[in-house]
Formats: sequence, C-alpha cells, structure tokens
Amino acid sequence: MTVLKHTGDFAWEHVNLLKYKEEGTHFKSVTRQILFGGSKNLPGELRYFEIAPGGHSTLERHEHLHVVIIIRGNGMALVGTDVVSLDLFDVVHIPSRTWHQFQATAEEPLGFLCLVNTDRDRPERPGKADLNEMKKTPAVAQFIKR
Amino acid sequence: MTVLKHTGDFAWEHVNLLKYKEEGTHFKSVTRQILFGGSKNLPGELRYFEIAPGGHSTLERHEHLHVVIIIRGNGMALVGTDVVSLDLFDVVHIPSRTWHQFQATAEEPLGFLCLVNTDRDRPERPGKADLNEMKKTPAVAQFIKR
Repeated sequence: MTVLKHTGDFAWEHVNLLKYKEEGTHFKSVTRQILFGGSKNLPGELRYFEIAPGGHSTLERHEHLHVVIIIRGNGMALVGTDVVSLDLFDVVHIPSRTWHQFQATAEEPLGFLCLVNTDRDRPERPGKADLNEMKKTPAVAQFIKR
Repeated sequence: MTVLKHTGDFAWEHVNLLKYKEEGTHFKSVTRQILFGGSKNLPGELRYFEIAPGGHSTLERHEHLHVVIIIRGNGMALVGTDVVSLDLFDVVHIPSRTWHQFQATAEEPLGFLCLVNTDRDRPERPGKADLNEMKKTPAVAQFIKR
C-alpha cells in the first residue's frame, strides 16, 4: 500500500487499532497503530500511540532508543529524572536504559509517533530498589504511576 | 537534548533550518530540519521537510526507502506511475527504485516528516528515456516538474 489515507480522528485506512500491550495493569488507556513495520532496507518501525485522557504508558526502560513526536494534544513524560511537559510537535529522544513514562492530561488525549529499531530488546519494569531511587526526586515521586 | 520543543510554525529549539539540497534548479522552495540524526542503536534519520506554496521536491529515485507522514497542509505526490493527493496525517511509503516527487499546492505549504536509513545511496535523476517512459501516463506527464 503506497498511501495510507488518514480517515480522520487519528485512524488510517488498512491500519489496525491494536492493544498497546497484550496484558498488564501497569498502563492505562493506550492504543497502538503500526504505520510502518520496518524492512531490510529501513529497519525502523513507526507507530502511532494514543493515550486517552487520564491514561499513561508503562513505566519502563530498555537498551533500544525511542524518538517520539507529539501529533495530538498534550501531556507529560518522565525521561530519566526529568518530568517534562509535552505540547504539539515537540520531539522527545529517550536514550538507552532511561526510565520513561508518558501521561495524558485529564482533559485530552496524547497522541504521538514513536520510532524504534525493528530488532529491539524487551522493556524492563522497575523493581523496589529502582522505585526507591526514582522517588528521591520529588517531582518524579509525584509523577509516576504503575 | 532530551526534548526539542516546538517553537511554533514548524520550527524547533536547537534544530537548524537547512537547505533541502546544496545546489540545483530541479527543486523549488524546500527546507529541511533534522529532528533525529540516527545512532548505532537506531540507524534511521527523521527529518521535517517543508515545501512552500507552489514549490516541489526533486523528481528522483534511489535504492533506499522513504516513509513520509504529512503534518502540515496538503499537496500531491508522484509515486511510481501514480499521482496521489496528500492530506493531513496521510502516510506515504516510497518503495525502492521508485520515481517520486512531492508538490505543495499554490495556496499552502506542504510539511512532512520523512524517515530514511542513515546509510543510504545517492538519488538518481531521470534521463531523457526515463522521462519519455514516465510521460506515457498522461497524469504523470501533467504532474512532473524538473
């Protein structure tokens, strides 16, 4: 398919609306759509994630990088020990092995494109010691959900 | 830099506005901004291109793929022998070795994200025989600029 037409409201022809992850209670109200699945000549995947108002992605880290660009609404993210606000068209680089979590506001969805390598490691979730370390930063302690 | 804040009007903090290409008269009114330059762990580049009203990108082809998503305005593109209209958030996959060209309308800019592999071949421009072949399709003959 050469062109995936946007059909309005951040849905595309021939693109399935997927669960963010198959299981777990460590995220809330997140959907996933694969806009490009990667190929030998371009081993990256481009996905569109949308977090409904009040929702959040998993608090996690991994070796692989994320490049994110906000294309709907606004929200906040944890990146390492920083809590940052995210507005339309902001770009976020998540470095390797960096704790991160995205959250929508209570009022509107947060939608973003996320680029990853096709070949990537599984995310790791924080243990008790990791959480204790994170919570030393008050803004982080207030922010994280799990 | 973890977050590249969008400063309005499709410009970003810490991101330079670049020429589309260093030389040539085979394109018109195109700018380029690099939002992610690629890394060993994620060998893709994410660029934002903007074509001003009445402008167009180079008519070219190459081995490497493009994945494009429109984030500003609308326009048209040649992809192989198809002339397609492009609206906000449409996704375009440009396959390997496929002639392509993007054009803005006369009224508004066409802005899009474009994902490519970091390691990629140089584009090829059409010769006389290629152009004659392309022009066998009337819609293509009408569309192409060079």
